[in-house]
Amino acid sequence: MDRDQLEARILARGKELFAIAGSEKPSVFNKDWWTGKVMDWSMGHEDFKVQLFRFIDVLPCLKTEEMLNRHIQEYFSQGENIPAVLRLGAKGAGIGGRLGMKVLSRTIRKNLENMALQFIIGDTIPKTVKNLKKLRKEGFAFTLDILGEATVSEKEADLYAESYIRLLEGLEQARSDWAAIETNDSELDWGHAPRINISVKPSALYSQANPADFEGSVGHILDRLRPVYRKVVQLGGFMCIDTEMRKYKEIIFELYRRLRSDTEFKDYPHLGLAMQVYLKNSDRDIDLMLEWARQKSLPIWIRLVKGAYWDYEVVLARQSGWPIPVRTIKAETDAAFERSAEKILRNHDICHLACASHNARSVCSVLELARALEVPEERYEFQVLYGMAEPFRKALLKMTGRVRLYCPQGELLPGMAYLIRRLLENTSNESFLRQTFVEGRELEQLLQAPRVSAGSPATATKERVPRSESKSGLRPFSNEPFADFSLAEVREAFTAAISNVRARLGRSYALLIGGKEVATEQLLDSVNPAQPSEVIGRVCQAGIRQAEDAISAAQAAFQTWRDIPARERASYLIKTAEIARKRIYELAAWQILEAGKQWKQAYNDVSEGIDFLEYYAREMARLGEPRYMGHAPGEVNEYFYQPKGVAVVIAPWNFPFAISCGMCAAAIVAGNCVVYKPSNQTPIVGYTMLEVFREAGLPDGVLNYAAGRGAVIGDFLVDHPDVNLIAFTGSMEVGLRIIERAGRTPESQRSVKKVVAEMGGKNAIIIDDDADLDEAIPHVIDSAFGYQGQKCSACSRAIVLDTVYDRFAERLVEAARSVRIGPAEDPANFMGPVIDQAAQKNIQRYIELAEAEGTILYRSGPGQIPAEGYYVPITIVEGITPEHRLAQEEVFGPVLAVMRVKDFDQAIEWANSTRIALTGGVFSRSPAHLERCRREFRVGNLYFNRGCTGAVVDRQPFGGFKMSGIGSKAGGPDYLLQFMDPRTVTENTMRRGFVPIRSEDRWI
Amino acid sequence: MDRDQLEARILARGKELFAIAGSEKPSVFNKDWWTGKVMDWSMGHEDFKVQLFRFIDVLPCLKTEEMLNRHIQEYFSQGENIPAVLRLGAKGAGIGGRLGMKVLSRTIRKNLENMALQFIIGDTIPKTVKNLKKLRKEGFAFTLDILGEATVSEKEADLYAESYIRLLEGLEQARSDWAAIETNDSELDWGHAPRINISVKPSALYSQANPADFEGSVGHILDRLRPVYRKVVQLGGFMCIDTEMRKYKEIIFELYRRLRSDTEFKDYPHLGLAMQVYLKNSDRDIDLMLEWARQKSLPIWIRLVKGAYWDYEVVLARQSGWPIPVRTIKAETDAAFERSAEKILRNHDICHLACASHNARSVCSVLELARALEVPEERYEFQVLYGMAEPFRKALLKMTGRVRLYCPQGELLPGMAYLIRRLLENTSNESFLRQTFVEGRELEQLLQAPRVSAGSPATATKERVPRSESKSGLRPFSNEPFADFSLAEVREAFTAAISNVRARLGRSYALLIGGKEVATEQLLDSVNPAQPSEVIGRVCQAGIRQAEDAISAAQAAFQTWRDIPARERASYLIKTAEIARKRIYELAAWQILEAGKQWKQAYNDVSEGIDFLEYYAREMARLGEPRYMGHAPGEVNEYFYQPKGVAVVIAPWNFPFAISCGMCAAAIVAGNCVVYKPSNQTPIVGYTMLEVFREAGLPDGVLNYAAGRGAVIGDFLVDHPDVNLIAFTGSMEVGLRIIERAGRTPESQRSVKKVVAEMGGKNAIIIDDDADLDEAIPHVIDSAFGYQGQKCSACSRAIVLDTVYDRFAERLVEAARSVRIGPAEDPANFMGPVIDQAAQKNIQRYIELAEAEGTILYRSGPGQIPAEGYYVPITIVEGITPEHRLAQEEVFGPVLAVMRVKDFDQAIEWANSTRIALTGGVFSRSPAHLERCRREFRVGNLYFNRGCTGAVVDRQPFGGFKMSGIGSKAGGPDYLLQFMDPRTVTENTMRRGFVPIRSEDRWI
Repeated sequence: MDRDQLEARILARGKELFAIAGSEKPSVFNKDWWTGKVMDWSMGHEDFKVQLFRFIDVLPCLKTEEMLNRHIQEYFSQGENIPAVLRLGAKGAGIGGRLGMKVLSRTIRKNLENMALQFIIGDTIPKTVKNLKKLRKEGFAFTLDILGEATVSEKEADLYAESYIRLLEGLEQARSDWAAIETNDSELDWGHAPRINISVKPSALYSQANPADFEGSVGHILDRLRPVYRKVVQLGGFMCIDTEMRKYKEIIFELYRRLRSDTEFKDYPHLGLAMQVYLKNSDRDIDLMLEWARQKSLPIWIRLVKGAYWDYEVVLARQSGWPIPVRTIKAETDAAFERSAEKILRNHDICHLACASHNARSVCSVLELARALEVPEERYEFQVLYGMAEPFRKALLKMTGRVRLYCPQGELLPGMAYLIRRLLENTSNESFLRQTFVEGRELEQLLQAPRVSAGSPATATKERVPRSESKSGLRPFSNEPFADFSLAEVREAFTAAISNVRARLGRSYALLIGGKEVATEQLLDSVNPAQPSEVIGRVCQAGIRQAEDAISAAQAAFQTWRDIPARERASYLIKTAEIARKRIYELAAWQILEAGKQWKQAYNDVSEGIDFLEYYAREMARLGEPRYMGHAPGEVNEYFYQPKGVAVVIAPWNFPFAISCGMCAAAIVAGNCVVYKPSNQTPIVGYTMLEVFREAGLPDGVLNYAAGRGAVIGDFLVDHPDVNLIAFTGSMEVGLRIIERAGRTPESQRSVKKVVAEMGGKNAIIIDDDADLDEAIPHVIDSAFGYQGQKCSACSRAIVLDTVYDRFAERLVEAARSVRIGPAEDPANFMGPVIDQAAQKNIQRYIELAEAEGTILYRSGPGQIPAEGYYVPITIVEGITPEHRLAQEEVFGPVLAVMRVKDFDQAIEWANSTRIALTGGVFSRSPAHLERCRREFRVGNLYFNRGCTGAVVDRQPFGGFKMSGIGSKAGGPDYLLQFMDPRTVTENTMRRGFVPIRSEDRWI
Repeated sequence: MDRDQLEARILARGKELFAIAGSEKPSVFNKDWWTGKVMDWSMGHEDFKVQLFRFIDVLPCLKTEEMLNRHIQEYFSQGENIPAVLRLGAKGAGIGGRLGMKVLSRTIRKNLENMALQFIIGDTIPKTVKNLKKLRKEGFAFTLDILGEATVSEKEADLYAESYIRLLEGLEQARSDWAAIETNDSELDWGHAPRINISVKPSALYSQANPADFEGSVGHILDRLRPVYRKVVQLGGFMCIDTEMRKYKEIIFELYRRLRSDTEFKDYPHLGLAMQVYLKNSDRDIDLMLEWARQKSLPIWIRLVKGAYWDYEVVLARQSGWPIPVRTIKAETDAAFERSAEKILRNHDICHLACASHNARSVCSVLELARALEVPEERYEFQVLYGMAEPFRKALLKMTGRVRLYCPQGELLPGMAYLIRRLLENTSNESFLRQTFVEGRELEQLLQAPRVSAGSPATATKERVPRSESKSGLRPFSNEPFADFSLAEVREAFTAAISNVRARLGRSYALLIGGKEVATEQLLDSVNPAQPSEVIGRVCQAGIRQAEDAISAAQAAFQTWRDIPARERASYLIKTAEIARKRIYELAAWQILEAGKQWKQAYNDVSEGIDFLEYYAREMARLGEPRYMGHAPGEVNEYFYQPKGVAVVIAPWNFPFAISCGMCAAAIVAGNCVVYKPSNQTPIVGYTMLEVFREAGLPDGVLNYAAGRGAVIGDFLVDHPDVNLIAFTGSMEVGLRIIERAGRTPESQRSVKKVVAEMGGKNAIIIDDDADLDEAIPHVIDSAFGYQGQKCSACSRAIVLDTVYDRFAERLVEAARSVRIGPAEDPANFMGPVIDQAAQKNIQRYIELAEAEGTILYRSGPGQIPAEGYYVPITIVEGITPEHRLAQEEVFGPVLAVMRVKDFDQAIEWANSTRIALTGGVFSRSPAHLERCRREFRVGNLYFNRGCTGAVVDRQPFGGFKMSGIGSKAGGPDYLLQFMDPRTVTENTMRRGFVPIRSEDRWI
């Protein structure tokens, strides 16, 4: 194949395509119409575009005129008038006042709905069928996709699957009306393609789809996909499995392979798979799929797409600390498309190609490639989205005869979300359509081969390079990446780590005092809460004597540690982080077994610990530099910090590595020496933390391990006159006791004790009347029941506006019903056991209280809960008001009160009505409401449109006020200050009238 | 007079001068010798110059070989070898090791001493007389000045005055040997000038000289100067009164006028006065002096100098916030010199001129001016410093015949200080000698008229311009200027303010609650501690009910105040500061009468209050801006602060305006509302603070005034569940009680109380064996007895190294004996009454304890102390060791323990041996000792080579640790954080895969 010749042909073909298309513009770019004008304005005004897209997103929720008006005002007229472009077509635009606004609002709504409808084939089966008939008359084939893939519960997944069956039945009835396209065959279009053709988004078929639970996800999706496919087969139709977000990619590929090779269906060839070439490893994926087909001798069918989740994938990767999985230079994706198409065409004997693109170059390239390779016409087709690129699709049809339109079907609510994706695509700087129809690029340029190396900075999206090293010699802080469970090696590492750890269970652990292991006679068994007969380890218990020794050891070590330079102390933390990073799966595994933490939760706990180490190391490097105060000559004023002395760290069990590590790291790097008392529920995880510090070579006595019963050594440690600081995280009761006792200063004491205490939470998420429930429900479920609700940040109150209450409650209950409960080591389980029997009983008492104070909306049935282990049911209770104990007391378990409020004022009032002020959340798309919450919803960590747990070091410094704790936020810029005292040293530099000139700040 | 002709003559005269001087270089620049080489190296190496000059300063103190070696190492060989230039002439330089070092050290000492000796005519009278004879033989007249003007006590002032008498007696005996110069008159040189000529630095004649006490200073100096002058007159000699630092200028001018017009001396013409033209208002000063002479018909005599304290004056002005009083462009000073000389020459009938300069241009200009104006030769003469500019002085003598050398006389110890001044002068970039002999400037250039406007940036010392306005719209913080008591208007303002306030004494004051004045039946009399019968005011006392009301009022106001934008809250502080600034003398006067504060102390207290207002306003503007955390796209994290709620401010009486204002301002600007309880010793000053806030328009209820007895409302305020924060400054006992009570959190409370407490001090100043006692003693006196020792920062322990102990103790006692005790309203008194009878009794008990535990070194006698008022004697006790109560307990009065330690290790150990760690001081010139103290002398505010009181906002953020308080330093960057809780608001900005691009931190 002569490439130059081929290029020439592609160019000629492209010119032909444009010639046929003529001067018509796609409707979104046609400035004769409202849509075109608005899009044009958007492309020139980024702020307006943001507001417009967000408004489109919320629009379907604006049920009343009041809501509609209010949102239009909030989104588009910050103190000014609504932009003229939005007023177009509104007859009342000139009237002003209430009436004018009414007319205007209605017009805007109508215009935007029409915009959305342009991309949707129909919202009901009859309307869909009618429009399909029209399309087919024009000569287009179709594939149907049902909108509304956000299924938050198994019930919704069932309904979604059923809707396909209903749709197929509708098509079955309708098809008798249709003639086949371009052939006389009464059944097959073009002589080979089934007329009935659907596309399915598989993640919508299992509400609990989860990359960590690979097998479970594949299995459950298949359970619902199989009946749909059976119906397709029965109708002699075609089904394409769409590929969605990257995290589901391997699940979807596996799904395709299973279904394609299923004994029931293997002889039926009409099953397709969408593959995205914007993924950096698309070439390998396609190779593997073709290889599989050959190996199995099963012909396959690939719809080649570029990919529709680019922004999402980039943001997710950046937020997660992963390499960006998508190609960041558009030309690379375009090149990959052509490369992959060629590969498939060269394998046309085993693989059918659907070329799905609006890019004239890509399309012509595939067409000419196929012809050059003499691929039979029935082995490839072209696909275009319904409502997009209208001039092209007609021209393409004329040129090839085989164009299929991808037609979304369904209601306006999910339709608006779909509209945003389409508008984004159309208005992106990289969009071929924008370049063609808006920017009017030269034809030659548009049709040239994608030039990969020529990616100019303007078109390249650079991966973020770490900023240069700072003065401290440390690279700027970046969070430890999250675990990417879509990678098989990550899942395998978990499984292996759990077996490894399990093989080491039951050992005995000594205390560590002044660098020496100290065994005591009293031992405590730490057990697996999912299986209390399994002993994780036996831990020596410190008595008064060992506690005293530990304080002495810390005090002795302090005499030298305090004067080790800050940078050097910081380097111990960096080393510790390095070791923890290497052992991360093992450290997580200990938590899975000892604390009942799910894979992801356990991994995040360790990585949060690593974050604390890395962050506080840098914070200390920053704070370790003296600050020069004032500007007067003749004196030099240095402001710097010194450590406080002996710090007692009393840690909780719920973040047994992260919080222990954070408190210890902060104390240590600031120059204090630590007596660390781990929780007696998780002493082994505490010991693993000790191990990583020891491995890093921390000098003896700087960190002492003093496991022991609170009742025996707690008060002793707190009261001890040689203790300077107590860092505590745990319950309010214990916290207040510590604060009170530490407030007493006996004569023998040489400093007033400092207490840093993080205590409870009683956190609320407000669901506004315009909330996106598809987002809100999974986030509330996660926040309320993640790690069994045993987080101080957990959501225990959902405060829901009356107008959305019923819909929210109903969907929430179904979502809760859908989660699985069982041992944390099985990634299929969303929820595990609570920490111990005492916790179990306490939560059960609150469930009884819930029954008394309110009405139980949902409680997990006995069949959902394993018999062995400290399990409690998920409980959702309604009818709770602020007067109830359920609205005031921290349960620390999976119990959620859903509270109905009449309006947003009451929502804020109720949210603030507790003694505790730790976290909170708001699901709202009203800019004014969010702004008000920013001020008035007074909690330590407030989250808009996401869950209220999962704060990340540096990004969301964590901690609250009121009764939720004293002290500044962990993982934030003020935290280390609490572990130190500031000092000032002033030198009078004038001697005999002689003053050295300060070079930093010349004063003459 | 034709100026061009004159210029031509000056140029010619200058060339002649250079021609006569020939190629000889002044010895300091002669690189054939050690001195010249070292000076050359200094001018090229600024760091070396600093070290060298500092080493010269300390050299006379290095009594032992060990000390000498150690200091040479510390000053000159930071990890490296001693610079080659210092090794020159040391025969053992190549040997190395201990012996080599010994030889080297001795050589360095010898060389430097020789350098100093070159500027000193003699260290004993016989040697002086001998050298004078030699000078006179060469044809030079002389004036003698006795070194060692730093007199820290009246005894030293007596000795200094006596040394002049002794010197004059010596000269009396010697003069018979001398022939008069250039004349046959046996008595008068040049036919008109007395042969015996002395110069006197008047400030040395009164150890308590103080610009605020103008009359007292003039009077006491005159008392000692008169006998000296009487002796001069008796010998037919001449006396010149030197002018020193600007602060004494008016005192010295007055001194001259009084002595010149004294009936005893008015007919004797030989009294001169030095006047400095570097002062910006020198022209006016000279005019006034000439006017006075004419008016009185008393011929006067002026030595015109440029001025020798330029660096000092600039630094002092910059540190004090004053306009720089000296000319900052060298050419301006040179021009002023010529202008002033001309003025005097034109008035030669009434004023004799001594032209004192080393600048050939200045000298030739005066010479030619005098000739042009036909001034008789006996009306002017030329003066040059002994040891300086040798080639010039000879040439000048040849040209004019009338050259007088200014000859310092005295010991090497003060001589080294004098050496530094001379070296500074020689090595300054502006130095005519340096420009001539080192830089080799063109003759024409050197001799041209001073061009004022041509001051290039290199030669101009710019006055500091305020940096541009910051984002907050506020100019950068700068401290309130100190009061300049050398200005008559300032002294008059004090006197007037005191009378004004006195006219308003005895009024009644109501409480202020929620903006309403609330009178109660119980009233408390606040009295003048210097005169307890004088009632300052009668103050309503809050009971429980009013305390409760005040808390409620604060809580009510909080609901709106909390949400007032930070910038707006800050603007109230700025307004308050503005008002306080206008009322500053009045506000100070209230303290003088109610708290017994001296003028300066009272003024500083108010200006510290203003500093707090201005500083915290800016701090809040800074902290009020949310910080954006993290860099992940798809989310925006804002980190910001919110107020805590109701703050109780419990203030002390010792800084009744400043500390009240600081605590209230911090609480208020952070958004809290305050219940302010002033001290019952100073409720009226507290009320004045309230007034300025009210005048600034602070909303009702934000600041409530609740004077009352601690015993009645103290615990109530602290325990109240609606109180969120307590800011306290006062005694340790009360502080610990508050901390303990606030640590209890009853069920009804909605937050754990935050306590910010500044408590006591037990502060030590270490006197190292190389300390500059001339500096150390006044600073210790000030730190220990300033405001009667009633400062938490006061020095109550002087820890003195054995080798300097006796000398220190002896001089200290004499210095203490020299201060005056009496009512603060009289600026002559250094010390006033203590605050009340209870304090008086308490201090008396400690004095008794001092007698029991140690040996009283000094106690003010009954005759020194007024009979009425709450006075206690200054008490200095020795023989105290850390075990004694006197070394551990805060006295809060003028009681100082002097503690003898064997070495520096013990000094640090003892300094750190208290439970309290507030301030400390070190007088040392050992870089290694200072460095060690920076680390190991662990106190909140440590001061090197200055006193340990007088911390200034922003420059020395104030506060300690251990038992001296909890919380971060007042007037520092972390203080406001204590009044707020941090919050984080996180917005998930991704909707439907759409993420607005953040412009601050583009992520693509």
